[in-house]
Amino acid sequence: MGNFENVSIVKKANIYFEGKVTSRVVLFHNGEKKTLGIMLPGEYEFGTELKELMEITAGNLDVKLPGNDEWVNFTGGSEFEVPANSSFKLIVKETTDYCCSYIKE
Amino acid sequence: MGNFENVSIVKKANIYFEGKVTSRVVLFHNGEKKTLGIMLPGEYEFGTELKELMEITAGNLDVKLPGNDEWVNFTGGSEFEVPANSSFKLIVKETTDYCCSYIKE
Repeated sequence: MGNFENVSIVKKANIYFEGKVTSRVVLFHNGEKKTLGIMLPGEYEFGTELKELMEITAGNLDVKLPGNDEWVNFTGGSEFEVPANSSFKLIVKETTDYCCSYIKE
Repeated sequence: MGNFENVSIVKKANIYFEGKVTSRVVLFHNGEKKTLGIMLPGEYEFGTELKELMEITAGNLDVKLPGNDEWVNFTGGSEFEVPANSSFKLIVKETTDYCCSYIKE
C-alpha cells in the first residue's frame, strides 16, 4: 500500500455524479499519471481514452468490462484492466477506494 | 489553485460517514501535513487536535465554530480556522472540495 513519493497532486478534485464519484490527479516525474478516487454505492458507466489499470484499495463492486456479458466482482486488493477507447460499467456495492493508472501503449 | 509539488500522498483514503466524507493525506518535505477532502451534503461534527485551516476549493456549507452560536456560510475560495482541541459542526449544502492544513502552534 504505502505512499506515492515525490509526486505532484492537483489541489482541485474531479467531481462526477454529484460527488458520488470523486478523484484526485497524481503526477509522477516520469510523466506517468494516476488518479486516486472514491466511488459511493451506485451504478456508473465510464469511458476510457488510454488503457487503465484499476486497483481496488478497499470496497466492493461489480464490473462489466467491454465485450463481456458477465459482471465480475472486485474487492480490496484486486485489480482489473480496461482497454483504451472503450467503456465499462460499474455497480458499486460498498464505498470503494481506488487507484487508476493511465497506461500509454 | 494549482498543484502541490514534490509531496508524498498516502494511497489509502480516510473514509468517514460511510464515504460521505473522505480525505487523502498529503505530506510535505518540511514535515507539514494537509488533507485534501470531499464532503457530500449532510450534517457532520469533527474534532481537532491541532489547529486547522480549512480552505474551501469548491462547494457550499454552513459552519458553527467552537464558542459561536451562529452558523456562517462558506463557499469556494473562502476559508476558516478551527482552534486546536476543539470541535466544530458543519452543514454541507453542496458537495464540497476542501484542503485542510494542520498547524502546529
